[in-house]
Amino acid sequence: VIESLKNPKVKALKKLLTKKEREKTKRFMVEGFHLVEEALNVEAVVELVITPSTTLPAEWDIDAKEVTCVTEEIFKELSDTETPQGILAVCKQPVSEFQSSFQRVLLIDAVQDPGNLGTIIRTADAANLDAVILGKGTVDVFNSKVIRSTQGSIFHIPIVKRDLTEMIQELKQLSIPVYGTSLQNSTPYRDVERTNSFAIIVGNEGNGVSQEVLKQTDHNLYIPIYGKAESLNVAIAAGILMYHFAE
Amino acid sequence: VIESLKNPKVKALKKLLTKKEREKTKRFMVEGFHLVEEALNVEAVVELVITPSTTLPAEWDIDAKEVTCVTEEIFKELSDTETPQGILAVCKQPVSEFQSSFQRVLLIDAVQDPGNLGTIIRTADAANLDAVILGKGTVDVFNSKVIRSTQGSIFHIPIVKRDLTEMIQELKQLSIPVYGTSLQNSTPYRDVERTNSFAIIVGNEGNGVSQEVLKQTDHNLYIPIYGKAESLNVAIAAGILMYHFAE
Repeated sequence: VIESLKNPKVKALKKLLTKKEREKTKRFMVEGFHLVEEALNVEAVVELVITPSTTLPAEWDIDAKEVTCVTEEIFKELSDTETPQGILAVCKQPVSEFQSSFQRVLLIDAVQDPGNLGTIIRTADAANLDAVILGKGTVDVFNSKVIRSTQGSIFHIPIVKRDLTEMIQELKQLSIPVYGTSLQNSTPYRDVERTNSFAIIVGNEGNGVSQEVLKQTDHNLYIPIYGKAESLNVAIAAGILMYHFAE
Repeated sequence: VIESLKNPKVKALKKLLTKKEREKTKRFMVEGFHLVEEALNVEAVVELVITPSTTLPAEWDIDAKEVTCVTEEIFKELSDTETPQGILAVCKQPVSEFQSSFQRVLLIDAVQDPGNLGTIIRTADAANLDAVILGKGTVDVFNSKVIRSTQGSIFHIPIVKRDLTEMIQELKQLSIPVYGTSLQNSTPYRDVERTNSFAIIVGNEGNGVSQEVLKQTDHNLYIPIYGKAESLNVAIAAGILMYHFAE
């Protein structure tokens, strides 16, 4: 049992709480029994971290895995939750390339809130999209709050990091209709004929999809606001649109 | 300018950060220029709190309002945000009674996450529902994180606190169809004929709508999961259903 915060292993784990270290090592941490199990299922786990009181489920196949045991106190330092479950895994980052077989994708333009991004990925998984494409300026997808909000979907659906302008050109060459979202110069989403293939773009919480991106789309859509709210939360808007097109 | 945390006024304001005090006084705090303006628009404000560097918009009609000025340091103690805007308002709690004229309502059964509840209220406002009904076990709607997530919709749509069993009986007497949400013994939402009046019930993040409540509904609906996600986030599910029925 490692008891010192100065232990090199602990120091290395703590560094994974920073985006810089995650990008350098291409690793990230997932926490709690549910997420660790999802990570084991897709063979993303490179190391398990537990506490002396942790009981590992007998059905987990971890024979070949490195297991590190730390005190509850140290575990709290590595944990992002208020009531840690005493189990986390260091994982390989599942980042995919765009495949020309993808037919239904969601593009993210600078979404900043970790909870929003995680929930959007979870919904994209539920709606069975082929991938979520992350443009520049989007919050780090391997941030612990994003991961927690995905509820495991980070391991179910391809996550692609791409420049959105290039991505849109490629989608157009594949004859996939590209739908931006905007409250200006746009069509109510229900008035647009549903298509088997589609790319939906959602944008930043404050500014929406950037004007530069909106110029390149085939159509821009909006979700009507019938009441007094000024706008919808971006994860809600993404959910309504994905389910509209996916069903 | 109040400089001491021991000042009775400051102590009274700090107490409003607790649910107990909010319930006792029927007051709550909203923070930031946007929310305070929304509160002023509906005449909910009883007191403004600012800092020496705060500039109040000239168009705000606050002549009759009590204004308290505190140091930046004290403001931070009252604030729930990382970068406070130096403006908050103590408001009367806008709690409504159920009206028999209500035709389209959302019932909340023990939603626990403040961000989820706030986003649901924002979406209910956007979809122009007549009210959001909060059952027992739901997070306090006047929690600062809930308020922030509503983005002002807390002042746009009636919020009713009711026992859900009683509420459902009353809705049935008014011939309003009551739709529970459940993954068991339920119908895909798109297969249910849309009605002009409706009551949709969404439930707790972990447990969904309670069995007791589900027994009393007219129909139970589910949103199909096409991918590998186990479920949808409750705010996303509420959004998809409200927009399905509201349009």
